[in-house]
Amino acid sequence: MASPHRVIVVGGGFGGLNVVHKLRRAPVQVTLIDRRNFHLFQPLLYQVATGGLSPANIASPLRAVFRRQANAEVVLGEVTHIDAAEKKVILRDAQITYDTLVIATGVSHQYFGHDEWEPFAPGLKTIEDATAIRARVLTAFEEAERERDLARTRAWLTFVIVGGGPTGVELAGMLCELANETLRGNFRHINPADAEILLIEAADRLLPGYPVKLSAKAAHSLEQLGTLVRVNTRVTDIQDGLVTVESGGQTEVIATHTVLWAAGVQASPLGKALADSTGVALDRAGRVMVEPDCSVARHPEIFVIGDLANLRCSDGKPLPGVAQPAIQEGRYVAKLIAARLKGKSLPPFEYRDLGSLATIGRHAAVADLGRLKLSGWLAWWIWLLVHLLNIVQYQNRVLVLIQWAWNYFTRNRSARLITESAADRNASTLPAADPP
Amino acid sequence: MASPHRVIVVGGGFGGLNVVHKLRRAPVQVTLIDRRNFHLFQPLLYQVATGGLSPANIASPLRAVFRRQANAEVVLGEVTHIDAAEKKVILRDAQITYDTLVIATGVSHQYFGHDEWEPFAPGLKTIEDATAIRARVLTAFEEAERERDLARTRAWLTFVIVGGGPTGVELAGMLCELANETLRGNFRHINPADAEILLIEAADRLLPGYPVKLSAKAAHSLEQLGTLVRVNTRVTDIQDGLVTVESGGQTEVIATHTVLWAAGVQASPLGKALADSTGVALDRAGRVMVEPDCSVARHPEIFVIGDLANLRCSDGKPLPGVAQPAIQEGRYVAKLIAARLKGKSLPPFEYRDLGSLATIGRHAAVADLGRLKLSGWLAWWIWLLVHLLNIVQYQNRVLVLIQWAWNYFTRNRSARLITESAADRNASTLPAADPP
Repeated sequence: MASPHRVIVVGGGFGGLNVVHKLRRAPVQVTLIDRRNFHLFQPLLYQVATGGLSPANIASPLRAVFRRQANAEVVLGEVTHIDAAEKKVILRDAQITYDTLVIATGVSHQYFGHDEWEPFAPGLKTIEDATAIRARVLTAFEEAERERDLARTRAWLTFVIVGGGPTGVELAGMLCELANETLRGNFRHINPADAEILLIEAADRLLPGYPVKLSAKAAHSLEQLGTLVRVNTRVTDIQDGLVTVESGGQTEVIATHTVLWAAGVQASPLGKALADSTGVALDRAGRVMVEPDCSVARHPEIFVIGDLANLRCSDGKPLPGVAQPAIQEGRYVAKLIAARLKGKSLPPFEYRDLGSLATIGRHAAVADLGRLKLSGWLAWWIWLLVHLLNIVQYQNRVLVLIQWAWNYFTRNRSARLITESAADRNASTLPAADPP
Repeated sequence: MASPHRVIVVGGGFGGLNVVHKLRRAPVQVTLIDRRNFHLFQPLLYQVATGGLSPANIASPLRAVFRRQANAEVVLGEVTHIDAAEKKVILRDAQITYDTLVIATGVSHQYFGHDEWEPFAPGLKTIEDATAIRARVLTAFEEAERERDLARTRAWLTFVIVGGGPTGVELAGMLCELANETLRGNFRHINPADAEILLIEAADRLLPGYPVKLSAKAAHSLEQLGTLVRVNTRVTDIQDGLVTVESGGQTEVIATHTVLWAAGVQASPLGKALADSTGVALDRAGRVMVEPDCSVARHPEIFVIGDLANLRCSDGKPLPGVAQPAIQEGRYVAKLIAARLKGKSLPPFEYRDLGSLATIGRHAAVADLGRLKLSGWLAWWIWLLVHLLNIVQYQNRVLVLIQWAWNYFTRNRSARLITESAADRNASTLPAADPP
């Protein structure tokens, strides 16, 4: 018997997971390579960052997911180079050959050429980002409680979120709930509800990818929760304790110790590695320009899917950087691989827009479901249901549901832990504050 | 009206929590100072270290616990010095005066003069310790899966636990379950059940604080699970990849990358700080020698409780370093403070031994309940019930119960995440391995 067709999938996000899963009955040997040992349900990462859920609630160990899939193997490692001529991926300490390669390593955040902002404005892409942001937000309230100077207290109670896309909107909504509900009565010298939460967006409205009406609803809901929404506003500088914004030619300096970055995205470096090896074109953000079947030009055996792929819909619009395109592309590519092995082909990938959902707070969400545009409590329940059903492991569904029910009825959140790395902890407990 | 009597409680563990809670109706103003923003239910920490529970399941935010207790305030900070003459505690950036001081900062682990062992043999006292151990254990299986050399694979699959007290016994039991049940079918090149789990104890039996019969039962249960129990064995050296043990004059070198330290304890440095200020005597481990009412000699207004206190029972035996003495001392001291404010006094503290419990694995535990000594499934169910009922927050009880039920029926564990600090992550994904 000839050795089976070897498929390597790099990246265990929504795209990669679906490729591997859909190949379970194909006559192939699949190797899934990821740097982390778990799949992360990124749409709920902001709830970890705001203490509503625990990391394990939204993470599924990859080996557990594919335990029963005999033709799949999980390799923990980081692909650094691709040798398209020799059909090999190169890891730090190993090389693996493939017949078909699928790259689904996604994007991280970028600071538009201002990487020096990163220490003061962490982004939200990983579990560690989420627990670091959680610690930063909770520590800000702690510092405000210790502070006796009014201006300095105010700076600790000012939270700036940069970027009014879904992540920024969701973070702002959750921060408002944290300040107004969860932390109520927790302090003796400050009122957490005095916190000022600013959401800054450079475009002329929040959720630029959504219909104008829903953007307005989202802004209205956030303002009712207490968020200060600033559209047409650009961040021009971030330093320790200060954010400078510019709006209509006016410059303003905001004193704050907590800036959260939910703005630009940047392609995974594997896009560049692929371009180096195959000459494929990248877009400005470093995403790979793929063919209509998600393959790479002149390399039909290499596919790029998910956020790392720049694939235009039939109407020429770029696909949104959310889970659905990655899932659908993953399933499509798996089908295409199986079809090719039977000597068949498939028509180009066709994206089926199932709609967009963003949640703002209790009973407040916006849903763009094609002709149906919803906001308010119905959108919120749909959001809840869709997210619960899509979490990969059944156990996580149960635990998230219970945790949410608890949070909902008690307006409390239990995962409010300030944890740190061992190195940080040895150095100090809290960031040094001026003496009161 | 005179300002109320000011009580400072340092440390939010079992002892400190109970002092504050029991003072809720006393005419005092209580300030609870802790370095961390949560109370940790330490008896279940080993379950976080082995992926069975999430950190938030066993941690309760202190501010949430005392939200409704109007006479209590929580201060996040680290007490570095005590000025007993001026009745002040000194924090890094503040000083707070007291009328009564209660110190309950517990113990950490110690390496018997071999601090150089610490990087290779982490102990288990904090949430960060637990997630670091979890990452180390899971990474060892990952490295074994990547490794092709038999001897090196064996070293990755060898786990050494130093110390046969309750923590060591519980860690060994959980590691066996992880290897034999949870990870079954997860790998393609190794069988996790081939892992060798060694439990090393210098005394002549496991659980030296327990009746001899229960020690034997515990050893038998562990051996049935697959643990290699080595009593009368001392660790003489730990290096990267190697542990040297000595038994009956024989020296043996064990190749392993995963050593967990569950041996000696060392008093919190606040014991020394208190001795510097009051001249109170410390024992060899740095614990404070307290009077029969938990107070410090010549300083009736200062109490030390919990693991940091060296208090002898009326029979002269030291109290065990578990939750019950701390809880009972905390309640006693709160009552004594309230009594004194009424001009009354109390008889010396009397420890009521409610028994000891240690769990080994599914349906296997040992319980020493005074005249009643149990092992097996009944002890296990008692252990489960006692721990569930004692978790501080109701929500955690529900979530832990569900998580346990899930783990029990599916033999699966979801919190198997390899997470790291941001600094580690940037440096590398996995510890560098030799090329295969």
